[in-house]
Amino acid sequence: MALPEIKALLFDVFGTVVDWRSSISRQAAEFGVKHGVSANWDIFADEWRDGYSSGMAKVNAGDDRWKIVDEIHRDRLNLLLEKYEFPEIPEAEISEFNKAWHRLDGWPDSTDGLTRLKSKFVIASLSNGNVALLTNMAKYTNLPWDAVLSAQLAGKYKPHPTAYQTAASLLGLETNEVLMVAAHSGDLHGARAAGLRAALVTRPDEYGDPEKADLVSEPEFEYFAKDFHDLADQLGCS
Amino acid sequence: MALPEIKALLFDVFGTVVDWRSSISRQAAEFGVKHGVSANWDIFADEWRDGYSSGMAKVNAGDDRWKIVDEIHRDRLNLLLEKYEFPEIPEAEISEFNKAWHRLDGWPDSTDGLTRLKSKFVIASLSNGNVALLTNMAKYTNLPWDAVLSAQLAGKYKPHPTAYQTAASLLGLETNEVLMVAAHSGDLHGARAAGLRAALVTRPDEYGDPEKADLVSEPEFEYFAKDFHDLADQLGCS
Repeated sequence: MALPEIKALLFDVFGTVVDWRSSISRQAAEFGVKHGVSANWDIFADEWRDGYSSGMAKVNAGDDRWKIVDEIHRDRLNLLLEKYEFPEIPEAEISEFNKAWHRLDGWPDSTDGLTRLKSKFVIASLSNGNVALLTNMAKYTNLPWDAVLSAQLAGKYKPHPTAYQTAASLLGLETNEVLMVAAHSGDLHGARAAGLRAALVTRPDEYGDPEKADLVSEPEFEYFAKDFHDLADQLGCS
Repeated sequence: MALPEIKALLFDVFGTVVDWRSSISRQAAEFGVKHGVSANWDIFADEWRDGYSSGMAKVNAGDDRWKIVDEIHRDRLNLLLEKYEFPEIPEAEISEFNKAWHRLDGWPDSTDGLTRLKSKFVIASLSNGNVALLTNMAKYTNLPWDAVLSAQLAGKYKPHPTAYQTAASLLGLETNEVLMVAAHSGDLHGARAAGLRAALVTRPDEYGDPEKADLVSEPEFEYFAKDFHDLADQLGCS
């Protein structure tokens, strides 16, 4: 059963709710074919994703101005187009390809599992992705959020405590009334440090290699589940 | 047909999407019975609502610190409990009654009309109500928002232009790509001044007297509809 005080669930999105790697790899392959470029597109996806972490770290450290994730993705994309020797491409087309991150497929259990969890709790995203990205993604892959929350609304990226605390505050809740759900231990440590509860949901296929995924729970995480249906069962959802 | 550039619709909520007056009147009557107080609860609802406008005006003018609408409602409720000679009531119960504004019924066309509009556009709230209030209300009366946006995220209340511009920016859109939908001319003038498009949807029953409602369009409003189905027809939604 759920801890009685839990009223809302916040979800990490990239990797936890959606399969960014195969979605980006597929769209990058299409983009490559169109522009006559061949590559290992899974690696291209990984390299694009690497720019996300380093870009946010720079913002949180004050080494870069505030940038939304669309901008951080674009910074890295500019480097990758050069590295992979893409020809000259019109700006509008690059900008559209950069929105590949708005079009990511959910894991097989995501929509149905979230719908079950929504029957009992407020469910909201809490991603570092910007609000527009998350809103478009929810429409694209049918994620039934009650609210689209983002670190953008805090001006600090997870795992900074302000990102979690702002989300709880926007929902009108105390931090211990909120359960953070993520496939990444680092995110959950951040949530616990900010006073939230934590649920690790395993996503062994996120990086294409289960060795790279967080598959083992830790004592400070209140819940450990193999997917959203398992979590819904543990939280007493019908 | 819709203007081709329109990508998202923002909705005023109190009065435009939900029938605050009869919902508050009904909950106030129940609260009155419980505490042995008789009154005209429609007038009680109107008096509570009056505190909303004056409270926000004070915040926008800098005559009060930033307060979310839950606080503004509570300020006025405290006065009304005294005026209507309610007995001493435990804090938790007053706080719960203050959330009557989270439990407002949609107009008969609201859920189905929004669902039609959602099939073609991003749809989001843009209310002065705080995010928690809007999120709980959407769950209570089944409003299928793609995103819950609020003037709270701008730190300025409508009709300040920052409230509208922040919402468009969070959706990653130019202001002229966004259509503001409201039953109130003042809100739509604010939206137009901020660069958004405007649709007046008439809600003759909002104040219990059609004379008090805005039922006539104005040249600067691009759309004029009698309800959300009419608007969906005009915007070419199936």
